[in-house]
Amino acid sequence: MNVTIDPSWSIGGKPHGGYLLSMLAEAALDGEHPHPMAISAHYVASPNEDAAEVDVERLRTGRRVASSRVRLTQDGEVKVEALVSSGRWTEGATPLWRSPLAPPELPPLEECFRAPSVGPTGTRVGQLDHVDLRPDPATVMWAVGQPAGHAEVRAWMRRDDGADASLLDLIVFADSMPPVTFDLGLMGWVPTLELTVLLRGLPAPGWIRVVQRATLLQDGWLDEDCELWDSEGRLVAQARQLAGYRVPEGWTPPAG
Amino acid sequence: MNVTIDPSWSIGGKPHGGYLLSMLAEAALDGEHPHPMAISAHYVASPNEDAAEVDVERLRTGRRVASSRVRLTQDGEVKVEALVSSGRWTEGATPLWRSPLAPPELPPLEECFRAPSVGPTGTRVGQLDHVDLRPDPATVMWAVGQPAGHAEVRAWMRRDDGADASLLDLIVFADSMPPVTFDLGLMGWVPTLELTVLLRGLPAPGWIRVVQRATLLQDGWLDEDCELWDSEGRLVAQARQLAGYRVPEGWTPPAG
Repeated sequence: MNVTIDPSWSIGGKPHGGYLLSMLAEAALDGEHPHPMAISAHYVASPNEDAAEVDVERLRTGRRVASSRVRLTQDGEVKVEALVSSGRWTEGATPLWRSPLAPPELPPLEECFRAPSVGPTGTRVGQLDHVDLRPDPATVMWAVGQPAGHAEVRAWMRRDDGADASLLDLIVFADSMPPVTFDLGLMGWVPTLELTVLLRGLPAPGWIRVVQRATLLQDGWLDEDCELWDSEGRLVAQARQLAGYRVPEGWTPPAG
Repeated sequence: MNVTIDPSWSIGGKPHGGYLLSMLAEAALDGEHPHPMAISAHYVASPNEDAAEVDVERLRTGRRVASSRVRLTQDGEVKVEALVSSGRWTEGATPLWRSPLAPPELPPLEECFRAPSVGPTGTRVGQLDHVDLRPDPATVMWAVGQPAGHAEVRAWMRRDDGADASLLDLIVFADSMPPVTFDLGLMGWVPTLELTVLLRGLPAPGWIRVVQRATLLQDGWLDEDCELWDSEGRLVAQARQLAGYRVPEGWTPPAG
């Protein structure tokens, strides 16, 4: 299947990982298995904002679950490889059991301001034209040179057009946060090596609450763990990625 | 590459997922990229304890990271498909930053007894002949009919032969816990659909501390999140899986 990578999603010229993953997940769906359940992607090389090919290989079609391998190539080179298992989530499903984990506490929407897609340095963060992302101000103090040192960012999210999020939108949201390394004063690019998104059910209408945090920065790599909660307080997606970081000369960790 | 699936690892006749994943990860390694970093697998169908074929396709060989796709087939049918990114962890690397997350608290080893590979029902849990798994008794009270209701299991782990764990062993350990659903009184089989393991560094010699927990059981699927910590208190692996569960007639949740 021929596709064109939409440059309006790019970050400083590099296509957004969540946008790519959502495109690959969609390519694997069918009428009997319309909902993504688990998607694992390895970002082998950054694609260009250009024509690309998406190839789907169905690995197995079961009654409850279908599994596929999806590949994005440009000029015959693999750029992103993903495994996608899909099925059908029940409308209105409720938890059989849930842990005490709760949605992130966020200030009211009216106290959270939309993250701009063009920052003071002039770099365009394309997904922020597509995602209305309203961070908790306390978690983005790095934007005014005062990183909190917690490696955690919390935000409200919805689509830019105000429509309710689909499961494919949740895949985008799961990779839409600013890097949590910013909260440690590490302002460089954080390229994703691996990203897995588990969808857990159909989101209720309304804003999605998102929290992303790191556990460990070591040897050039960090984890970013992301939870997405719907307006009814239900966990609708869990994502984790392994991403690279660089430490600039003279960096010291914030007090935190 | 022809392999034979060792039946000594099976659980009630079904090959152990961690054993299979470790085998697939190993097949993707090379001299320049000897250490697994991120492995994502979709368990498409359960293989038989029999001959199988493992095929590796190298997606990209970079200086820091090599990425591969690895497939396990039997009679031409895909059983497990995995994406493996590998590189080289630095010996003695220390955290640049770490969250307040700490290793699980466990009673001293001498108060934790090795989990037997054959339980009262007679089902053999093969990986417990290979992994010396010593659970915190408080988290396995389901074994005496008193599930605690927390969907959390904690344990000490090492290889059965007492040797220090390699990164490939950690992949096995990341799928060696009893299902956390047992702690909710759901005693059925919990087949893994998707499992991702992130390795975070070379483990120090000695016992590995492991905690596995669920966040949500809904619509027939649960997440199992697993952390592995080495004897020096460092996080050495993070794993998450999406697995299926069934609820028997008349089940009620434990008080918890």
